[in-house]
Amino acid sequence: MNTFAAQDLATFAQTVLAKAGARDDIAAATATYLLEGDLLGFSTHGLKRLYFNAKLLADGKARGDGAIKIVRDRAAVATWDAAFLPGPYVAAQAVEAACAKAKIAGTGSIVVKRAQHVASLAAYLRIATEQGLLVNLICSTPAQSSVAPFGAKQALFSPNPYAVGVPTSTTPILIDISLSMTAAGKVRQFWERGEALPWPALITATGELSQDPSVYIEGEGAAILPLGGHDLGYKGSALCLMSEIWTMGLSNYGRSQGPDDGESNSLFVQVLDPAAFGEPSEFIQQADDLVARMQACTPIDSTKPVRVPGQRALQYRQQQLAEGVQLDSATVGRLERAAERFDVAMPKAMPKPMPLRL
Amino acid sequence: MNTFAAQDLATFAQTVLAKAGARDDIAAATATYLLEGDLLGFSTHGLKRLYFNAKLLADGKARGDGAIKIVRDRAAVATWDAAFLPGPYVAAQAVEAACAKAKIAGTGSIVVKRAQHVASLAAYLRIATEQGLLVNLICSTPAQSSVAPFGAKQALFSPNPYAVGVPTSTTPILIDISLSMTAAGKVRQFWERGEALPWPALITATGELSQDPSVYIEGEGAAILPLGGHDLGYKGSALCLMSEIWTMGLSNYGRSQGPDDGESNSLFVQVLDPAAFGEPSEFIQQADDLVARMQACTPIDSTKPVRVPGQRALQYRQQQLAEGVQLDSATVGRLERAAERFDVAMPKAMPKPMPLRL
Repeated sequence: MNTFAAQDLATFAQTVLAKAGARDDIAAATATYLLEGDLLGFSTHGLKRLYFNAKLLADGKARGDGAIKIVRDRAAVATWDAAFLPGPYVAAQAVEAACAKAKIAGTGSIVVKRAQHVASLAAYLRIATEQGLLVNLICSTPAQSSVAPFGAKQALFSPNPYAVGVPTSTTPILIDISLSMTAAGKVRQFWERGEALPWPALITATGELSQDPSVYIEGEGAAILPLGGHDLGYKGSALCLMSEIWTMGLSNYGRSQGPDDGESNSLFVQVLDPAAFGEPSEFIQQADDLVARMQACTPIDSTKPVRVPGQRALQYRQQQLAEGVQLDSATVGRLERAAERFDVAMPKAMPKPMPLRL
Repeated sequence: MNTFAAQDLATFAQTVLAKAGARDDIAAATATYLLEGDLLGFSTHGLKRLYFNAKLLADGKARGDGAIKIVRDRAAVATWDAAFLPGPYVAAQAVEAACAKAKIAGTGSIVVKRAQHVASLAAYLRIATEQGLLVNLICSTPAQSSVAPFGAKQALFSPNPYAVGVPTSTTPILIDISLSMTAAGKVRQFWERGEALPWPALITATGELSQDPSVYIEGEGAAILPLGGHDLGYKGSALCLMSEIWTMGLSNYGRSQGPDDGESNSLFVQVLDPAAFGEPSEFIQQADDLVARMQACTPIDSTKPVRVPGQRALQYRQQQLAEGVQLDSATVGRLERAAERFDVAMPKAMPKPMPLRL
């Protein structure tokens, strides 16, 4: 692990993206939300992606300038065509706009097609929770098939993440999960380390369950199993189907329209205002009550109290803001590649405490 | 299995509920949606519940008359207090009202507190899909704790079902799943048959995984594991938490308010109009396209093509409407109990084909 000051990473990423062709505000937003992924511990969807995102801009596959096209717009709903603007810039704006709609209409729902890769959904949740609002993000990838429907040994669904943010009186609840037995980025992480997956998350082209990441990464036609796996995969499969309908279906832009769109995403963003349904203070009491009841449950292992989603991520964020951001060597390698290609000086790693010599 | 004509069961159930104290329209709606559960194959949440629902009315724990109280109402959102009106009557009206809102505002969201038990969520989905609308139903039970949060050996969450309906050009997609490793009703079914669960869906009070339904049913303090189980239960646990916040949180009525409310439910109903986000015809093309792609996936077992959620349920519904509704002997026993208590003649079972004598 290498440690960098968060501000140094933000400045570096913003400079790389600007040199790759992004307008200043687009470069700043993209850098901010990639870094936010790392801060929260979603390192597969953080600055590890900076080189790819910059390359998309430099190659003309992501737009560095221009506006989001508003396809439809009403008080409570909108549809946007991002036409390949960088995903982090688009996603953050969509959450902001959905918040504004929710404050007027009670709920705000925005469907987005053709955003470039949005990275970590968790990174956008606090935009809503800091305004006392609930948020739900669904994301799919029209050009990708990674997850098998239940009963199939062939991939169809994209690796669909699902994220939820809820304000409480203290730290917000932040949920960011895939609706499959693992995320594609995690399979790649295990493959890079030469390790087996901790459980059978894959199904091979011949229909065998597998823990071997190479059957997926090395093009042998394996698929990721939907959440629920061998026995209960019909549940994850149904949730994946829902997420593709809420994104590709409502935006009228799916696998037939976007087969060559690479990693670009379709998004469904929904924000709900507790003040439209009841008393905001009573909502917060309910959220606090559920958190307290979760934490009061007897843990299986008495040394591991039940955790509330987001708590550990937010602690890690605080710690990394104070003590520096941890990046693994693969990520540092990609930052160095970006530094070289776009002629930007690498940020300086923070000094490490001397290892003890005994 | 015993077979009854659907119309005979509907008339019988409506008469029982009316005699138990329900106003005619309330009795009719409750009978219709309980039967609809059986028609779709959700027999744990169909007429098996008629005796309980009638008893709640007769005992004054469900209201047979009166109106739903509108707590909040805006173009796109509302909050209702059902004050223990029968759940099927309330849920169907909530979906209808959310449809009306969605046609005006693009989306319609209704949160309901204190509905008596709503039975099968799947039964209400076609109200929306037949109008070309998408629907999402979330349900929780403030007085029940059945599902353990991830990492706990103690139940907290209620058995939270999650349902989704989507129109296509042919039969709609109907999803109705629990966010746990099994539903409480299914544990009871296995216990009644003296059988073990097909996978470890339970965690005992001492923290052991278990397939034995008696540890849950016979009051030994076991809990149902969240979807994802031992390894990935943090996903199901997060989804359960979301569902309790969307229902109890937004309605400001949770475990602290309703500890003595028995099986009464909190609901979140959301309907979305594809015409607000894009072209309705293009939405249908997207839904059809996803269905076709699912069906085209290579199945693990070549004799079992990949199924789309709801297809089998709707086929079963058609078949039972034509040939009669199948009820197991436990359900028939409960209908007989209702017939006796409320002095209504049992419907006549349909003749069975003579078994072959060889």
